[in-house]
Amino acid sequence: MKLISSRDNALYKELKHLAGSSQARRKAGRTLLDGVHLCQTYLSLRGAPPQCVVSESALRNAEVAELIAQCEARQVHCITMPDALYAALSQVEHGVGILFVIETPERAVTQALSASAVLLDNLQDPGNVGSILRSAAAAGIGQVYCSAGTAFCWSPKVLRAAMGAHFVLDIYEGVDLAALVSDSAIAVLATSGYAEQRLYDVDLRQPVGWLLGHEGQGVADDLLALATHRVVIPHLGQVESLNVAACAAVCFFEQVRQNQV
Amino acid sequence: MKLISSRDNALYKELKHLAGSSQARRKAGRTLLDGVHLCQTYLSLRGAPPQCVVSESALRNAEVAELIAQCEARQVHCITMPDALYAALSQVEHGVGILFVIETPERAVTQALSASAVLLDNLQDPGNVGSILRSAAAAGIGQVYCSAGTAFCWSPKVLRAAMGAHFVLDIYEGVDLAALVSDSAIAVLATSGYAEQRLYDVDLRQPVGWLLGHEGQGVADDLLALATHRVVIPHLGQVESLNVAACAAVCFFEQVRQNQV
Repeated sequence: MKLISSRDNALYKELKHLAGSSQARRKAGRTLLDGVHLCQTYLSLRGAPPQCVVSESALRNAEVAELIAQCEARQVHCITMPDALYAALSQVEHGVGILFVIETPERAVTQALSASAVLLDNLQDPGNVGSILRSAAAAGIGQVYCSAGTAFCWSPKVLRAAMGAHFVLDIYEGVDLAALVSDSAIAVLATSGYAEQRLYDVDLRQPVGWLLGHEGQGVADDLLALATHRVVIPHLGQVESLNVAACAAVCFFEQVRQNQV
Repeated sequence: MKLISSRDNALYKELKHLAGSSQARRKAGRTLLDGVHLCQTYLSLRGAPPQCVVSESALRNAEVAELIAQCEARQVHCITMPDALYAALSQVEHGVGILFVIETPERAVTQALSASAVLLDNLQDPGNVGSILRSAAAAGIGQVYCSAGTAFCWSPKVLRAAMGAHFVLDIYEGVDLAALVSDSAIAVLATSGYAEQRLYDVDLRQPVGWLLGHEGQGVADDLLALATHRVVIPHLGQVESLNVAACAAVCFFEQVRQNQV
């Protein structure tokens, strides 16, 4: 294991740049995966990462030791550093002190939609995007397509909220959703507070695309018009509609329910 | 309207203390409601707040002017201050610059559960708590009971995530959930990843209590044992269970669905 002890170390500076800048992560095609749980999930689902970074105090943690042993057995480049240096790389408060550097897959859309999928139009909040990825994975959905305006899926916040869902999903970013919806081989259902068809009245026993929109404005009008259905989750309260991640979960699991009945 | 121009003003110091400290808010029995939307919702559902605070630049905003007019018509104490002073009171980035000081209702449990309700056991994340309140209100649920370990419902983060749901809900905090569940006149359903009964197989056409637990550990074992049912949302994926706020939304709207079919 390599020890970095200086803030002036070139690799350390590179890691700090990745940790602090979304633009740097996009440009490098790499991101940081922070915490024991995410690293364990990555190792078991995607195999060896390019690099493993550990704080000195974390070396005494049993789960971290096990992760390092697995990394070293697979010739992963392992690095340790003083806790003070590590702290600048991590956004996890009171974290254990391990992160993987991983490549962020870039996928290009080459096929029409034919399996159940999630389409995110301009979603802003990383916590919402992460929660939606997690719900999609739990509901057995395999693909997620994001418009250019949607939060970057490989940011540390989205990764944390998704709890490993990234590693069982095919995630496409910067997608032309209008083209995807137009060419779709399956029905695309847009959720909208103004729709008249109830979610519960749509037959979901075949694959569908779920089109979800911006937290405030919802799905853009041109996409709404292109969707096969516009559906509403009936509300009983006097207040605002559902949070978009809550709405997504209700939709995905209504599909699960219909397929299991 | 009163103008505060100094950081040494006693009222300003009191507001800043409320803004910065959860303990101060609990002790004072007051909190800050930040942003045009929340203030509009409060006025329409709960009436006049004790105080209204506006940044000087927000005075030029049409929605803010309308809110101030409504407040002044109701003899609300309105205060304005330079933007630099206001900024220290607000957690909303790029916000418009209006907040209400409101009282946080303290309710004591005096009756057994008899209407549909949400029971939160040790939920930590303010965003999750807020999203659950919002989903509950949208699903027509009227009461929320929180254990002592759950995030304070009247914190600015919870208020923001709940988007006004607080004002249509009766919220009880510091509740002895074990006693509440034991004495309940209706079924209490605890969600658990380890349960065997599927959510979809329970008859939800009568009032039920929804018992939701800590983000990592779930519902505490003693409460799980006291619940009438332990239910699971079936998962199809290889990864972690649902986020607790997503889980809550699926449960509440399965009840809505069964009542509407």
